[in-house]
Amino acid sequence: MTDTIRPEDMPEVIIEKLNDRKFGEIRELFMSMEPADIALLLEEVERSRIPILFRILPKELAAETFVEMDSDEQELLINAFNEHELKEVVDELFVDDAVDLIEEMPANVVKRILRHTDRETRNTINEILRYPKDSAGSIMTTEYVSLRPDMTVSDAFERIRRTGVDKETIYTCYVIEDNRKLLGLVSVRELLLSPYNTPVSSIMETNIISVETTEDREDVANKFDKYDFISLPVVDKENRLVGIVTFDDAIDVIREEHSEDIQKMSAVSPSDENYFKIPVWKHAKNRIVWLLLLMLSATVTGTIINNYEAAFTAVPILVGFIPMLMGTGGNCGSQSSTMIIRGLALGEIRARDIGRILFTELRVALISGVTLALVNSARIYIMYRGDNPLFLSITTGLSLIGIVALAQCLGALLPVLAKLLGLDPALMAQPLITTIMDAFSCFIFFNIALLIMSIGL
Amino acid sequence: MTDTIRPEDMPEVIIEKLNDRKFGEIRELFMSMEPADIALLLEEVERSRIPILFRILPKELAAETFVEMDSDEQELLINAFNEHELKEVVDELFVDDAVDLIEEMPANVVKRILRHTDRETRNTINEILRYPKDSAGSIMTTEYVSLRPDMTVSDAFERIRRTGVDKETIYTCYVIEDNRKLLGLVSVRELLLSPYNTPVSSIMETNIISVETTEDREDVANKFDKYDFISLPVVDKENRLVGIVTFDDAIDVIREEHSEDIQKMSAVSPSDENYFKIPVWKHAKNRIVWLLLLMLSATVTGTIINNYEAAFTAVPILVGFIPMLMGTGGNCGSQSSTMIIRGLALGEIRARDIGRILFTELRVALISGVTLALVNSARIYIMYRGDNPLFLSITTGLSLIGIVALAQCLGALLPVLAKLLGLDPALMAQPLITTIMDAFSCFIFFNIALLIMSIGL
Repeated sequence: MTDTIRPEDMPEVIIEKLNDRKFGEIRELFMSMEPADIALLLEEVERSRIPILFRILPKELAAETFVEMDSDEQELLINAFNEHELKEVVDELFVDDAVDLIEEMPANVVKRILRHTDRETRNTINEILRYPKDSAGSIMTTEYVSLRPDMTVSDAFERIRRTGVDKETIYTCYVIEDNRKLLGLVSVRELLLSPYNTPVSSIMETNIISVETTEDREDVANKFDKYDFISLPVVDKENRLVGIVTFDDAIDVIREEHSEDIQKMSAVSPSDENYFKIPVWKHAKNRIVWLLLLMLSATVTGTIINNYEAAFTAVPILVGFIPMLMGTGGNCGSQSSTMIIRGLALGEIRARDIGRILFTELRVALISGVTLALVNSARIYIMYRGDNPLFLSITTGLSLIGIVALAQCLGALLPVLAKLLGLDPALMAQPLITTIMDAFSCFIFFNIALLIMSIGL
Repeated sequence: MTDTIRPEDMPEVIIEKLNDRKFGEIRELFMSMEPADIALLLEEVERSRIPILFRILPKELAAETFVEMDSDEQELLINAFNEHELKEVVDELFVDDAVDLIEEMPANVVKRILRHTDRETRNTINEILRYPKDSAGSIMTTEYVSLRPDMTVSDAFERIRRTGVDKETIYTCYVIEDNRKLLGLVSVRELLLSPYNTPVSSIMETNIISVETTEDREDVANKFDKYDFISLPVVDKENRLVGIVTFDDAIDVIREEHSEDIQKMSAVSPSDENYFKIPVWKHAKNRIVWLLLLMLSATVTGTIINNYEAAFTAVPILVGFIPMLMGTGGNCGSQSSTMIIRGLALGEIRARDIGRILFTELRVALISGVTLALVNSARIYIMYRGDNPLFLSITTGLSLIGIVALAQCLGALLPVLAKLLGLDPALMAQPLITTIMDAFSCFIFFNIALLIMSIGL
């Protein structure tokens, strides 16, 4: 019974059966598993065993599993395949999966793959490859069910039965004219709930939400989120249907963009790969450029501090407040920038809202700044009773209010600015804001300190 | 023609037509729009106009639009509805949408809503409300198509045609026994591609991926990501089918968790609301607790610095290096913690991998630390030629290497620790790491400085 094997024991069980040459039993086990799980399992066994295990899979399951594997293992398999095996897998791929594969493989492997696709598929693949990275065109597939407006419901079912097996989804069918202009769409649900002799044109939805080939894939994913569609039609500038994007691709995009965002927001060059699969030197490379940049930018803060040497050697206790002030500036800046980055990504905030945003942030800053200043003042009166607490409270309190206000405005402004410049707002997150605010925080603090000193408090 | 109105002009056009009492034309316009877009539009008009515009919508579209609206506007509408109107909307809601609504509304509104649901629906709603927040049970719906194993394909279609109109999805049908035990599932695609007299039991998929009612909704969403299903069955401990989760709910969960994560990672208490809908005092409240906590924690760093007053008044130039060292510590820590938080969320990393993670991070830290130390040294020889650059280089270089190593280990360790303690790893991101590393960075720096001074470099 397969139920009795725990998933974590599966690789061991499979290898044992392989050593005993019990191929039939392995096949049975595989057939009770989802392709994504088989792919995970194959990644856990010794690399030299992967091809033999893969060959045990039934043809269709083999292709489905292949799609779910990491590019490393895909390359390994392709190199192990003979021409016949390669053709079998390539034949079963959907066009969008074939495109993904070709984008990941080295040139010589791509050549071998393309040799096994028919001319029409090859042309389609080449066309999709020409769309810009991250565009709707680059993630679409061309395997959809198309209907003609004069078909009846029963014609439609006939067509679905005949061609549906090779389509990525059959649940939304697209009604097109001879020139491929998109007229409408009809769901299988609608077809199932209508009498057989109803003309498709009378039940099709003609208010169509579609995307253009060049539209950003993140905007495409947002449309899935908003409208809950199973698939979205991709059209060219003349409203001719060229492909569809399905909800599972949208989920992948949302995941990838999320992963990219949080990496960018922490100053890591984004990578889609599994943490453990990234070599150490590449981990370092993904992080070091930003670290260097931020480290060198911190020189500015150092120079500012050195310029006020006279102030802090006169009142050395001031130095102890620097981390608290810099930290608060960085935290406020990153809070605001995160709220704005999130709002921009969700489409809640547009660049032209900048005035409203600044007004909001300034009011929030006033509340936060005054609260922090009061709590800080209480702390000073408890901890530094002998060190002129009035001077310290006023200096650090005013600094806090100024720093919070500036940090929140900058935190709100920079992502919007990035958006306007066509950059990713996520780049304007914590690390950059923190580094900028470090310099401003010291500058504000020492100037306020000198001012209060000159008043003679 | 609706095509000639730009979406951003829509609210104005609608209000104009409303002033001219052209209700028919408004209705036409609405019928060419998606419910999500009508909901957005209603949010942009004056609040007092919302009920009258909503009443223009045809019944079914009205209910679909209602579901897409924010809870503020939903409450406004319910308060404006008479009993008959309320019943019409409530009747059209899917159970999961009704549950969402009830969770958001104040008690008196909930009472009115429940008065208009039949006893069976009320029981279902109450049951779903009993599942823990963020569980599979809390996001499921009970409106699915169930089949019996002895049905034929044509019986199945008959049943779909009869009951499908009220189901959230018809594309995956669930085959159950009399006691509701889940036997298998069959897709409409499979049904369409099979002869009419085939028994359902012979084509159903019996290797079922299902989730339990208490499973975390994030894990449920991960299953959608992994397997690309349209819907997933939710079963109780006895494998009885109690509901389904559909892909659009999974997309919502992924979005919400993403939004929650990046807010937590920037020390903002997560909120799902639109940036502009959150009142200023609430914006401040969402941020201020963390700010206070982090500000007070920074006191530790301040105290450490004050303890080394002798060192930095003797060599005041040292103070200028504090921001660079603290910044680098914070940045490295947050880079590592982000990579680990991401890996944990994607299921790539498990808590028991902690040894492997630390080994990886330490090697990355060695590469990064040495590189930063070298670049920093070059900078010192350029900028501080007259200030004992050898002493400064060695002190800050060794500090950098130590700080980077500690930061990366802590950054990797804390999210795993949070996971083990049942906390959200996202809490262990930049703000916390930065604050902790500030203290350690100063401590490491001054001790190395004193050590090198004592050697007499």
